[in-house]
Amino acid sequence: MASDIIAATTTTTSAALAAYSQSIASFLFRNAAFVAERICAAETSLRRIEAARLLRAHALVCAGDWNAAKQLLSQVQVALAIDPLQLDPFLKVCAKMSAFLLAKASMELGHAREAEEHLRKIMPPFNPLLYVDREGSSTHNSKHTESTKLDAAFLTCLEKYCPDDSAIFCLMGLICKQASTYSLAQQYLLQALEKNPYLWIAFEALCDMGFKVTPDIYFTDTACSNYISSIKHTTLETSVVPTKAENTIDESSSSAVPVLGPATRLRRQPSAPSNIRDTKRTKLTTATSATNAQLDPKPQPIQLQPSSLSTNSCPILKNILILAKAYLSYKQFDCAATLKIIETLCPAELNSARVAELLAKSYFEMADYRKAEEWFAKSISLEPHRVSGMDIYSSTLWHLKKQVPLSHLAHTLTETHRTSPQAWCAIGNCFSLKREHDVALKCFARAIQLDPEFTYAHTLSGHEYISMEDNEKAMQSFRTAVRCDKRHYNAWFGMGYIYLTQEKYDLAEFHLNHALQINSSNPILIVYMGLVYEKKKQTTKALDLYRRATQLRPDIPLYPFRLATLLHAMNRASEALTVLEPLVAQDPCESAVQFLLGKCLAQVGQPARAMKAFTVAQDVASGKVANSIREEIERIGGLVGVGGVEDGANVDGMEF
Amino acid sequence: MASDIIAATTTTTSAALAAYSQSIASFLFRNAAFVAERICAAETSLRRIEAARLLRAHALVCAGDWNAAKQLLSQVQVALAIDPLQLDPFLKVCAKMSAFLLAKASMELGHAREAEEHLRKIMPPFNPLLYVDREGSSTHNSKHTESTKLDAAFLTCLEKYCPDDSAIFCLMGLICKQASTYSLAQQYLLQALEKNPYLWIAFEALCDMGFKVTPDIYFTDTACSNYISSIKHTTLETSVVPTKAENTIDESSSSAVPVLGPATRLRRQPSAPSNIRDTKRTKLTTATSATNAQLDPKPQPIQLQPSSLSTNSCPILKNILILAKAYLSYKQFDCAATLKIIETLCPAELNSARVAELLAKSYFEMADYRKAEEWFAKSISLEPHRVSGMDIYSSTLWHLKKQVPLSHLAHTLTETHRTSPQAWCAIGNCFSLKREHDVALKCFARAIQLDPEFTYAHTLSGHEYISMEDNEKAMQSFRTAVRCDKRHYNAWFGMGYIYLTQEKYDLAEFHLNHALQINSSNPILIVYMGLVYEKKKQTTKALDLYRRATQLRPDIPLYPFRLATLLHAMNRASEALTVLEPLVAQDPCESAVQFLLGKCLAQVGQPARAMKAFTVAQDVASGKVANSIREEIERIGGLVGVGGVEDGANVDGMEF
Repeated sequence: MASDIIAATTTTTSAALAAYSQSIASFLFRNAAFVAERICAAETSLRRIEAARLLRAHALVCAGDWNAAKQLLSQVQVALAIDPLQLDPFLKVCAKMSAFLLAKASMELGHAREAEEHLRKIMPPFNPLLYVDREGSSTHNSKHTESTKLDAAFLTCLEKYCPDDSAIFCLMGLICKQASTYSLAQQYLLQALEKNPYLWIAFEALCDMGFKVTPDIYFTDTACSNYISSIKHTTLETSVVPTKAENTIDESSSSAVPVLGPATRLRRQPSAPSNIRDTKRTKLTTATSATNAQLDPKPQPIQLQPSSLSTNSCPILKNILILAKAYLSYKQFDCAATLKIIETLCPAELNSARVAELLAKSYFEMADYRKAEEWFAKSISLEPHRVSGMDIYSSTLWHLKKQVPLSHLAHTLTETHRTSPQAWCAIGNCFSLKREHDVALKCFARAIQLDPEFTYAHTLSGHEYISMEDNEKAMQSFRTAVRCDKRHYNAWFGMGYIYLTQEKYDLAEFHLNHALQINSSNPILIVYMGLVYEKKKQTTKALDLYRRATQLRPDIPLYPFRLATLLHAMNRASEALTVLEPLVAQDPCESAVQFLLGKCLAQVGQPARAMKAFTVAQDVASGKVANSIREEIERIGGLVGVGGVEDGANVDGMEF
Repeated sequence: MASDIIAATTTTTSAALAAYSQSIASFLFRNAAFVAERICAAETSLRRIEAARLLRAHALVCAGDWNAAKQLLSQVQVALAIDPLQLDPFLKVCAKMSAFLLAKASMELGHAREAEEHLRKIMPPFNPLLYVDREGSSTHNSKHTESTKLDAAFLTCLEKYCPDDSAIFCLMGLICKQASTYSLAQQYLLQALEKNPYLWIAFEALCDMGFKVTPDIYFTDTACSNYISSIKHTTLETSVVPTKAENTIDESSSSAVPVLGPATRLRRQPSAPSNIRDTKRTKLTTATSATNAQLDPKPQPIQLQPSSLSTNSCPILKNILILAKAYLSYKQFDCAATLKIIETLCPAELNSARVAELLAKSYFEMADYRKAEEWFAKSISLEPHRVSGMDIYSSTLWHLKKQVPLSHLAHTLTETHRTSPQAWCAIGNCFSLKREHDVALKCFARAIQLDPEFTYAHTLSGHEYISMEDNEKAMQSFRTAVRCDKRHYNAWFGMGYIYLTQEKYDLAEFHLNHALQINSSNPILIVYMGLVYEKKKQTTKALDLYRRATQLRPDIPLYPFRLATLLHAMNRASEALTVLEPLVAQDPCESAVQFLLGKCLAQVGQPARAMKAFTVAQDVASGKVANSIREEIERIGGLVGVGGVEDGANVDGMEF
């Protein structure tokens, strides 16, 4: 009779655990928390009480009640510390989940440092040798008492919500990235990616930090089969259709030890561009390196072979590989390459909003706003409620001075994503275009309030302050932007631009150079750099840059015009003429171009043709301009003052 | 070779599905969406493309991007309509998930009507006869092609996130409740509860609407085993420890048809008190009843037997049953019963924050604010980050005029739950106690903005308007409160109170009576009702009510004082004396009591003792009061003006 009751209890507890899972799956988180609470109150074994408490905390995390979850988890942590080495699989899963949930809640509450501390406790390898020994002896599974049966039911439920090692590495990497300890972030994210080729956000984060990851190593069939062998309790174990392919998987899944070989290699890889200005890192790096060394007893040989890559047999990984290559080159600002890589995608991928957005952003970085707009429009037509990239879209429309579509975009975003920073950037851009700079600033401030790490909002604020001629505050905004993202070249450009207007050419050179090192294919950056060299009388360098800009964007008349002006000033009028002639052919009604043409012609001794050009220049210049044309034109090339020319030469905006 | 590639594709897709699940479990929703997108792009079969799209939408819902999810799901819906009867299990799961996710997203966006429409499409029974036939012939599982294998992998993944019937019924019930179609809500929630005894929120919602559900029917071993037999693919199927108990479960789980018998019975049950003022209901009720009749071919006999209940063998259901009874009596405002029921809980449950909160709220409803405070304090000490019930706790402190703890509570809540209506109610109460009524009103308005259905904030606004002597707006707030929750007696009391001050005694009687019908054990309601009867010269009724209040709360001197005053006015001085004497013994320094005592003594012909009482009355009354004691006392009982007496008689606040 007593044993009957115990058996019934086991059944009911199992049913309650099933009900918990169902509640989580049905988004009934409050109910899941209630069920977990009841299981907790009815349990007699300490370990299962803790497990039930963990499940309750998990439900609270799902419901977004971070504070309550954290509070509850802080109690669990204490009890689990009884087994500090977590050799028991039950406690191991509990410890993993508990630390992971604590880290998640801490992150959401903005306590990154705390999150890191929690995760560090469960960083794989989890002393794998000892773990395997215990598994091997399997003292645990031999007893078939009700208690072990209940333990098994709990374990199955917990494992559903227990993160795998790749997720732990990934979260750790993202935390380190947020704390700007890039090299540490790199280590963790690479390990995450190695364990799981489907962990795209890890790859994205690596690219965002500027690391040149080799996609060919990670997104391969080999990586996929390694991943498969590392998973237990997944869809692959479904008993519905047992066949050869699946048996292979099951066999390999019996070895629970994670493959750690390649991690070691990558951990020792040099850590690339982020070395500059990485100040906060030192302390943390040393601490972890030591821990890793302790836990990782013997480095194993490299297992991943980049040779088998091009033979990626399945379309999913093939597509991911192409996307990865495209994203990498986009984040290296080799946007022309991105465009080429994307072409190799299958039609289904090509027709996705994500790819359209990547194309649009690539064109934006190349300052080709018209094409950027086209692709953004396509992205929106495919997914009208997309919020990703909409900040850049709004800037695109700002550059194109398209007030109506910009207003429409801002309005739509406000309706659907009121609490997204992207929406507020769009609204801000909308006001900026109307020259209501103070309102625009408030919008950008709101975006920053919603997400203080949203770099672009800081940059936009900076440009807005420039418009309001408050260089101090503009500088401050740009500095904050760079602190959020060292590779945000727009902010470096902003600072360079301010120094240029202040005639501090050395500082301007330093900052613009930094921006160019990040994005070397942006013609606006190149022309401004040329301007700085012109000011510093380093005319050869300036000429080179103007030529590069002209080559990159032959459709923008400002770049050859700047080139010709400089050539004329250097008494190289014949060269200037070869540059000017296509410009005149393109638009004969451009007063400034005609005037420069005239001066060049005069220099090379063709006074008649020069006179004709001067006359045309005076004719096409309107009203007052015509009268004061001489003085006006004399001032061309003064300081940054591209203003007059810009308007005339039909140039895209010079801001980002 | 080609077959190898296909097999490899199957494996990679399975791996991608596993990676999807892992991303969801690890809260990496953006990654899950990415993986689903890739699966979608790589798939060739239409049904699997739709399934992958569903998974992507699921990830978006998890991430809280309701708009994007809805948009994506609206596309899925179209494609699935190809098989309108959803006979195929694959399509059936897809249709269920799609509609459920759409309903969830619509609910979150505030489109309750739309949510209802989506859910209605998948309301069980799902034409179960046909479904079983198809399952029986099992034409689907006989072919072992790669395609069916892939289908199986998808199905396993989808089923993890597919809501069971109880969840669908529950969500539908909650939607109907929000739309104030209570009887329909009742039907759905009862069915949900029948299918799943662990669906506490369904029970809670039923009680909140005032339905007298019989917990003994639902929280039983029988219900639990019925639930177990209805679940497939859960923790119960774990192969780790196969034993007798589990085999039983597996056997029964093979019948996939939901038990529908008792649902029919309950659907025809009369729908109880909510009939009053249920205006919006008519249209919807008819529409659904028709649908249900169509889908439910033959009513089956009742299966649940309440006889087996008291023998609930396992502690979890035993505790849930007790909690259910306690919650039911609390929501019926039979709070004394609640207290008794709770005593029968096990110590682990008794020591939980949830139970402490229930006790605190019960005492609050009985206007015993001191005990309520004690239990709220215990609830907070157990779970410092609890937000549930904190609105009531702040009102408790308001009644007790405890400014410092109230400020502390408001401060803590603001820090941890800034966007919860409870926090803003607490802040509002804090300002209300400081008599800063306009600021308090703003706080309550913020609470309403955060959750327009948060009834208590409307009521608190009403009371605040009364303090500002704006009866019009107060009335409006109370009416809105009643619209949100018909059983919110505090709002009915507020309206009654206003009519009382306006000397509209019939209307006051109607509204106070309504409040009393809901909560008959609240002494404040009873005394006010007595006051109304006194005004209406229905002295016998008034006497009865004052006596009832005195019995309920012998510790509050106001109630017997009112009783004695009325008795004296009715020339029943000797009876008044028996009431007054314990009062005098309790606090001899109460001027008003001594004065009344004197008058009664004079009436029964004891002038010497009367004189002594008058002298004491004059002595203990301070300053001016002593001089004008006669006039002051004459006015006792005027209108609602309990003011003077209240202060003297040390009464708890009269508002809610």
